Amino acid sequence: MTHVASRTVGILAGMGPAAGADFARLFVLACEDWLRTHGHAVVDQAYPAHWMAQLPIADRTRALADPQAPQPLAAMAQGLAQLAGLGAHAVAMPCNTAHAWHAALQRQVPQVELLHMPQETAAELRRRGLDRVALLATEGSYRIGLYEQAFAAQGIACVLPCEAARRWLMEGIYDGVKAGDLPLAQQRFVQAGTQLRAQHGDIPLAMACTEIPLALPQAPEAQGWTLVDPTAILAASLARRAYAGS
Amino acid sequence: MTHVASRTVGILAGMGPAAGADFARLFVLACEDWLRTHGHAVVDQAYPAHWMAQLPIADRTRALADPQAPQPLAAMAQGLAQLAGLGAHAVAMPCNTAHAWHAALQRQVPQVELLHMPQETAAELRRRGLDRVALLATEGSYRIGLYEQAFAAQGIACVLPCEAARRWLMEGIYDGVKAGDLPLAQQRFVQAGTQLRAQHGDIPLAMACTEIPLALPQAPEAQGWTLVDPTAILAASLARRAYAGS
Repeated sequence: MTHVASRTVGILAGMGPAAGADFARLFVLACEDWLRTHGHAVVDQAYPAHWMAQLPIADRTRALADPQAPQPLAAMAQGLAQLAGLGAHAVAMPCNTAHAWHAALQRQVPQVELLHMPQETAAELRRRGLDRVALLATEGSYRIGLYEQAFAAQGIACVLPCEAARRWLMEGIYDGVKAGDLPLAQQRFVQAGTQLRAQHGDIPLAMACTEIPLALPQAPEAQGWTLVDPTAILAASLARRAYAGS
Repeated sequence: MTHVASRTVGILAGMGPAAGADFARLFVLACEDWLRTHGHAVVDQAYPAHWMAQLPIADRTRALADPQAPQPLAAMAQGLAQLAGLGAHAVAMPCNTAHAWHAALQRQVPQVELLHMPQETAAELRRRGLDRVALLATEGSYRIGLYEQAFAAQGIACVLPCEAARRWLMEGIYDGVKAGDLPLAQQRFVQAGTQLRAQHGDIPLAMACTEIPLALPQAPEAQGWTLVDPTAILAASLARRAYAGS
């Protein structure tokens, strides 16, 4: 047994389930990276305890567009409280649009730190010296300016896709990844990226919906593109929280 | 919102963490497959609620070899009880060697069905009409005859690797996958498989340690080999339990 001190952390997921499972993979990789960087042996027992809740939560973009549609807050808050009850000190939520309810969730469950994905991403991009990125996201995220605000706070300019490209993104997310049709997803994401690059050159593309990195980076057309993955950034942030103080 | 009835299930993992994360991916795929087969739309809300515990649990093979070594049972039982407390009706444990404590765990937490990976695998291989497989596993699993018994109960003959091949498997599992060195893992697993096939022809190879399918199927040498993946079989069993009665 090795003796790397760590604290229990949580993952509030299911939005969608494939993205949640992939986040678990990214978190394990981020922990492995942390262990290696800090000179610890990489063995099973050196990883922090982490709990993942994959819950059936009402669609976030639909809820933001229509107050009469099923709303996700109650189920998310219950899952977050359960993660806190399991001892989680910090929780990551691998769904960008769900951050529309970040403040409400943090208010309802104040005993756990709920990481803020757009803010973690903006801070990391600042560290990397980027000052301008294009934003690939859901209609729900655009609607509430989730990333625009976080980027503005770090002085990062934010380029938005046109209406047609936004439609392609939504098709790639919903009819593609969430419905298990990866070839369709890849095609639609590539269409959106191609258009943004035609207009703005080799601009970094922030894959600010957790479904996008499940299909776009593998596309032959996207090889050589500058892709930013907020999900991987969030996973690294959660690993740092788990090992904080070590 | 779709209305596919399902029950909460759990995943008791961390043995190792990469295998646990991959099991979450396999479970999501198994649910997608179930939904498609049963004519349901594949949308986020059609997946069963599932909780995954990735816990730092003492090494199973070491515990079986040395009664003085740290023992895993207490931590596993606590995790299983917590999953039951979250409402899980059935729980899968993506670590083959951990099934040495299956009976003890089921006794301590009788209110949840703890799936038995070797028995689920043996039943599935029987359905597929296989009557002879070679077993790739940990020393701990060989020591207690975990799979040999389950296969014998289904009338399936079990071929075991020689001592050298067993050493290669342990190196691939511990110094390879668990330590984050996939090229080493792949090389060692291929060595063991090559030897078994030289002796027994195109015999199906059961990857009966959750680390093995993280490296072997991707090896160029293994293309065309007949590989059996108990982890994927367990994921499908858990999906069936989650949708039972639907």
